[in-house]
Amino acid sequence: MVHPEKHAVCLVSGGMDSAVALAEARAQGFVCHALSFDYGQRHKVELDAAERVAQALGAAERRVVRVDLSEIGGSALTDVLLVPKDRCEADIGKGVPATYVPARNTVFLAVALGWAEVLGARDLFVGVNALDYSGYPDCRAEFLRAFEELARVATAAGTEQGARFHVHAPLLELSKASIVKRGIVLGVDFSITHSCYDPLVHGDQIGACGRCDACLLRKKGFLEAGVPDPTRYA
Amino acid sequence: MVHPEKHAVCLVSGGMDSAVALAEARAQGFVCHALSFDYGQRHKVELDAAERVAQALGAAERRVVRVDLSEIGGSALTDVLLVPKDRCEADIGKGVPATYVPARNTVFLAVALGWAEVLGARDLFVGVNALDYSGYPDCRAEFLRAFEELARVATAAGTEQGARFHVHAPLLELSKASIVKRGIVLGVDFSITHSCYDPLVHGDQIGACGRCDACLLRKKGFLEAGVPDPTRYA
Repeated sequence: MVHPEKHAVCLVSGGMDSAVALAEARAQGFVCHALSFDYGQRHKVELDAAERVAQALGAAERRVVRVDLSEIGGSALTDVLLVPKDRCEADIGKGVPATYVPARNTVFLAVALGWAEVLGARDLFVGVNALDYSGYPDCRAEFLRAFEELARVATAAGTEQGARFHVHAPLLELSKASIVKRGIVLGVDFSITHSCYDPLVHGDQIGACGRCDACLLRKKGFLEAGVPDPTRYA
Repeated sequence: MVHPEKHAVCLVSGGMDSAVALAEARAQGFVCHALSFDYGQRHKVELDAAERVAQALGAAERRVVRVDLSEIGGSALTDVLLVPKDRCEADIGKGVPATYVPARNTVFLAVALGWAEVLGARDLFVGVNALDYSGYPDCRAEFLRAFEELARVATAAGTEQGARFHVHAPLLELSKASIVKRGIVLGVDFSITHSCYDPLVHGDQIGACGRCDACLLRKKGFLEAGVPDPTRYA
């Protein structure tokens, strides 16, 4: 499964999932162009983590595109609403969560598609997975296939050269524990990734809250994988 | 065709096409939420025009979302490349033009979709038309239908409530002359719209270059419609 000199645009958020997706792309031999977004999220420490991840995993280059989704509101991640805390585990994944940013992945993939067209790349990598699947509509296989179809008709490459774009979601069917295990195999250093929705920042020190959905899922992933959790909690 | 209390997100660029599309939405009774983008375009006078248009045509509110597409390059509208000038008319509309911004409409519609979901709106209005159709892949009916299908699976509204989103493109089959005529019927004041890709700005005075594709098409539209051209040329 090695594609010599094939280029891919990889969405890198700074979280553990997109780090493993980037590692998969690299393992498949893609020259990786890492793409991150400054979308008015409240946890910009993510962007620093994304830079560390892109560098550590050998991305050829990295771009940060500002998309001010807070302007259209609607999510605990960009609004002043509180991020839910201390929910019981059974509640996570039920319905669309408060942290859902409307059409976020559609926007991110659209920009990735634009960059891919500029680069002449036909492959996009995203870290969406089974856990997101249960709550975020734009993390399902059905969404990814619809986006591939859109990409074909939306681009000069697709309409003039018949190019097909492929949205790779190598973690789509994986649990958090499986993602941790896969990341270890691929040499991902999870200590440089960041998941918390509501981190405590004191100068250079960043502490994860340990209580938001992202922290709870991350903790559980390491626990079930039997891998020591390298996260620094506040 | 009046939809009482129905809300629509209308893309408003400041150009004449989106102004007429907004006027159509208003004429159909929609409460209109005007959306403009600061996407690193070289002609930001567009954004001032968009504000005038939204206000003049009675949009209920207006948002400007910054999406820095210049970060991914690839277009004469955001790159330092020169906008083509003085092309013969027959060349306009042949192939994908240098002013094509990769995946621009996909990105814009994705953000519009996100806002529509926040608002509970199911209707989007865009000013794409037959002239764009010939050059920009993301201005074709095929693209708009693919986007509607994506919207259904991309959103909480679509997946949880079975909502269908409708992308209205009332100018899709119209020539520039027909757009001018339709705009006059709908009471659009074209003097407040802006089309030029390379305007001359001196303080408050803005002069259209008269030589880029956008200027040439605009001139021709007024001429063929038999309507005086209110554009101030440099």
